Amino acid sequence: MAFSRSGSVSFLILAAFFAVLTNQALSSRVTPFIELPSSIADLESQSDLSVGSYCESWRLAVETNNAGSWKVVPTKCVSSVAIYYDKGQFARDYNVVANYALAFARTIKLGGDGKDAWVFDIDETLLSNLAYYSAHGYGSEPYNSIAFNEWVVEGTALGFRASVRLFNALKKLGFKIILLTGRDEGQRSITESNLRDAGYSGWERLLLRGHKDQGKAAVQYKSEQRESMVKLGFKLHGNTGDQWSDLEGFAVATRSFKVPNPLYYIP
Amino acid sequence: MAFSRSGSVSFLILAAFFAVLTNQALSSRVTPFIELPSSIADLESQSDLSVGSYCESWRLAVETNNAGSWKVVPTKCVSSVAIYYDKGQFARDYNVVANYALAFARTIKLGGDGKDAWVFDIDETLLSNLAYYSAHGYGSEPYNSIAFNEWVVEGTALGFRASVRLFNALKKLGFKIILLTGRDEGQRSITESNLRDAGYSGWERLLLRGHKDQGKAAVQYKSEQRESMVKLGFKLHGNTGDQWSDLEGFAVATRSFKVPNPLYYIP
Repeated sequence: MAFSRSGSVSFLILAAFFAVLTNQALSSRVTPFIELPSSIADLESQSDLSVGSYCESWRLAVETNNAGSWKVVPTKCVSSVAIYYDKGQFARDYNVVANYALAFARTIKLGGDGKDAWVFDIDETLLSNLAYYSAHGYGSEPYNSIAFNEWVVEGTALGFRASVRLFNALKKLGFKIILLTGRDEGQRSITESNLRDAGYSGWERLLLRGHKDQGKAAVQYKSEQRESMVKLGFKLHGNTGDQWSDLEGFAVATRSFKVPNPLYYIP
Repeated sequence: MAFSRSGSVSFLILAAFFAVLTNQALSSRVTPFIELPSSIADLESQSDLSVGSYCESWRLAVETNNAGSWKVVPTKCVSSVAIYYDKGQFARDYNVVANYALAFARTIKLGGDGKDAWVFDIDETLLSNLAYYSAHGYGSEPYNSIAFNEWVVEGTALGFRASVRLFNALKKLGFKIILLTGRDEGQRSITESNLRDAGYSGWERLLLRGHKDQGKAAVQYKSEQRESMVKLGFKLHGNTGDQWSDLEGFAVATRSFKVPNPLYYIP
């Protein structure tokens, strides 16, 4: 769904004025009993004026995992997702996530044995595929593995300012960085060069899906990989990922940090 | 921190116009590399114009548990929290949570043995203490157990439209409702009458903290109580709570639904 920048800007101004009118009309009522539509279907049938509010609720439901497994961004929320990135709120959100992660990391007394580790996912955690997704409907199209892998092997994904900063700060504190990705072992070389181009270096391990991992659900594969690191003696203090399947399962880190991702869901 | 309704409304309009100017200035830049402040301290030193964006990031960090344990709402975000409730976004968010919970509940084939259960927390999940918190700084004041318990025994907390709807729909589907609260056993009677006044009835169990539970961390107490229900043969399909300590630990439900709560954190 395309949207024009100037059109969305005019809409914002209009929405702000209408919000004022609506809010004044509601201001004498008690919040818990404000009349609300009773289902998602009801919400989706409302005028465009409420779309932004609904999509904000949808995005929160996605980030808290209340939405569970979902296939594509709802059509009416595609513009909201685009705006979320274009207007910088995603970057601001990730910046705050990185600050909390770093504040936690600074409380840890490292063992000095080189086994204090921090796990990072790669796609949408260290590398941004927004250039791909913005050209493919901002998450509104079903996952196309052929097209996506063609993009991956170009090796031109950008880093996030927040993740580069977090990655480097953790290294400086003495953490060993373990990269754990759903990418295939065959993509090791292009992934390494893309990571370096994006500003990352000096990781301890780069774990990709091998032959035996094919077909495994992400949460199982990633849990097994983390467990193998624990068996090697690593203490997994922190884990940063954009998918709940990066963070749940077994052998979880002491603290997990969820990077926002309203573009896609990996079960 | 007090704020005037008309003042905040004027601010919204002003903020919308400034946002337009700012966004146009940024529109030629690539999102992942937009210049951002490098710490929470930097963010907090910025002008009021960015406060809304920061507080949105803070609230997302709280809801995803990225913020971990926190004591009080940051001073600069108190107005944002008040607006979140007053302008209805909280109610809209909860409505969407309830829709996802109900959509999941409808996928479950019930056993017909009266053991299919759904767990609800009470405060800020079924009953709103917003009247108390709005009179006590919207989460900006440290928890005052004496003042809060005086409010609880008044028994005048309101229900949320979304939770009353979810509660009744789950009952109608045949789920047994288990209420699990950090409230004290001594508050059983007032809690029951408050729940009825707020529109709830026909729950299967109401579990409160007894003598042996005093001093236990919420996640331990609630996990033990859920486990005791599992031992009685209940299948815990869903769990709805506003705290991560309602939803984590052991004997967790198949699906957990996080109700937004930017007012306080219970470790």
